Amino acid sequence: MKIGLFDTGKGPETGLIEGDCIYPIGVPGGMIDLIGQWPQLRDSIAARRAAVPGLPLASVRLLAPVPRPGKIFAIGLNYADHIAESGMGTPPQQVWFTKAATSVNGPFDPIQIAVGGANVDYEVELVAVIGQSGKHISREDASNHVFGYCVGNDVTERAWQHATPQWSLGKSFDTHAPIGPWLTTADEVLDPHTLDIKCLVNGEVRQASNTRNLVFDLWDQIAHLSQAMTLEAGDLIFTGTPGGVGAAMKPPRFLCPGDVVRCEIEGLGAIEAPMRDEKV
Amino acid sequence: MKIGLFDTGKGPETGLIEGDCIYPIGVPGGMIDLIGQWPQLRDSIAARRAAVPGLPLASVRLLAPVPRPGKIFAIGLNYADHIAESGMGTPPQQVWFTKAATSVNGPFDPIQIAVGGANVDYEVELVAVIGQSGKHISREDASNHVFGYCVGNDVTERAWQHATPQWSLGKSFDTHAPIGPWLTTADEVLDPHTLDIKCLVNGEVRQASNTRNLVFDLWDQIAHLSQAMTLEAGDLIFTGTPGGVGAAMKPPRFLCPGDVVRCEIEGLGAIEAPMRDEKV
Repeated sequence: MKIGLFDTGKGPETGLIEGDCIYPIGVPGGMIDLIGQWPQLRDSIAARRAAVPGLPLASVRLLAPVPRPGKIFAIGLNYADHIAESGMGTPPQQVWFTKAATSVNGPFDPIQIAVGGANVDYEVELVAVIGQSGKHISREDASNHVFGYCVGNDVTERAWQHATPQWSLGKSFDTHAPIGPWLTTADEVLDPHTLDIKCLVNGEVRQASNTRNLVFDLWDQIAHLSQAMTLEAGDLIFTGTPGGVGAAMKPPRFLCPGDVVRCEIEGLGAIEAPMRDEKV
Repeated sequence: MKIGLFDTGKGPETGLIEGDCIYPIGVPGGMIDLIGQWPQLRDSIAARRAAVPGLPLASVRLLAPVPRPGKIFAIGLNYADHIAESGMGTPPQQVWFTKAATSVNGPFDPIQIAVGGANVDYEVELVAVIGQSGKHISREDASNHVFGYCVGNDVTERAWQHATPQWSLGKSFDTHAPIGPWLTTADEVLDPHTLDIKCLVNGEVRQASNTRNLVFDLWDQIAHLSQAMTLEAGDLIFTGTPGGVGAAMKPPRFLCPGDVVRCEIEGLGAIEAPMRDEKV
């Protein structure tokens, strides 16, 4: 199933996406509640969908499917070509940083170039959304803890990222974690490590790879993170970005106001955002 | 005022602490709701307090005053003696990492030594709790955005912290952000940069300093962070730890099961926790 969050004008509502329509499914609470109650809710979705008329998808504003995740962890240096362009070696261990919950942005909403932060770059990533909570999850069991997937853009302010050795602040600017366009439930993704992934700026392909090229795959990522932390419903894992980022070009090419950044992943849809200067 | 969260057996409740008593003040929702509505609520607190009998503070279990903050940012290398013992230079810029919301722990609850993470260290810190939301907050206006203060322990798994260049995962183990014992509202703290701060392990003083020794003070911290991110009600800022951490001793002394770690800050109270092996 494809489950999105959309703006009804009276607040966000969850909806089932089928073709070019979205069906409000009337689940109370937000997406994290829906994910947490999924084992009980799943069987009622067909009835909920049948009970309401669909709306044209083009007529609604889709919101970030998880507007305020409990946590967002993102892995660095996880595609060989991105490691090479970064001038780094393949890390012997998974390298994790975070994005603030306040950085989440709608799939088609403008991305801000902040006052004081003009070196903004794109990073298309497969995003996994945790379903069933867990700690010390084994690699073998990891797939049972994924609710679904979506497209993410790990937007990065490069000057802030590299101003100190710690990346998390430069990764956490407001609007710098666009996700969507909806969540595709895990049962519809036969293998998350076989998906074409692509980022385009103004129609020009900048990143193009396949998730089979992940250095540490998602199951290893979940096993590693959950040694430290309880992963919970709605937590987001950004699984790494392939080569082609603007910062690695010679000379570097950062995003400018008016640029349109499109991120696509096979089977999960596309998100697309215009760049805008922050107004203060 | 001192406002805490305590366990009633029927869920968490907010309470006003006066002397050795706690008065349930019956504010619906959690502490983040209370903080967000504070301008409207503040004047009603005295009446709420007068309407109910107090409970002996010793008879209730105090919880983390903000159990699930929207974000936790923590500054590294922010006291000269800690910089020296870490073998680092004074950073030219503020160095920020994060702690996961799931790492928050009650003020007197056991701290876990995780399976696979046995190099656990203490770091006592003054914690500021954001009240009024803001972005691009000036240094001059920063104090108006602080709801209050509490004691925090930036518990750290040192092997995981240094396994990669990024610290956030090693700082985010479950139970590794004890805070409390309650929030002291900002009006009761004349100057947060004049407070004695201390950490004891089994009664032995390990860290003892004063918040006047911060390299970057809290107002600079708020100004810096809010250039990137909207700070919101209930967000936590860990303001740095003084010298004396176990990792810097020769040989290093990490925490063991049964150790009792006490963190105190002048005027804000004390939190104290036994160390326990994680059970899986």
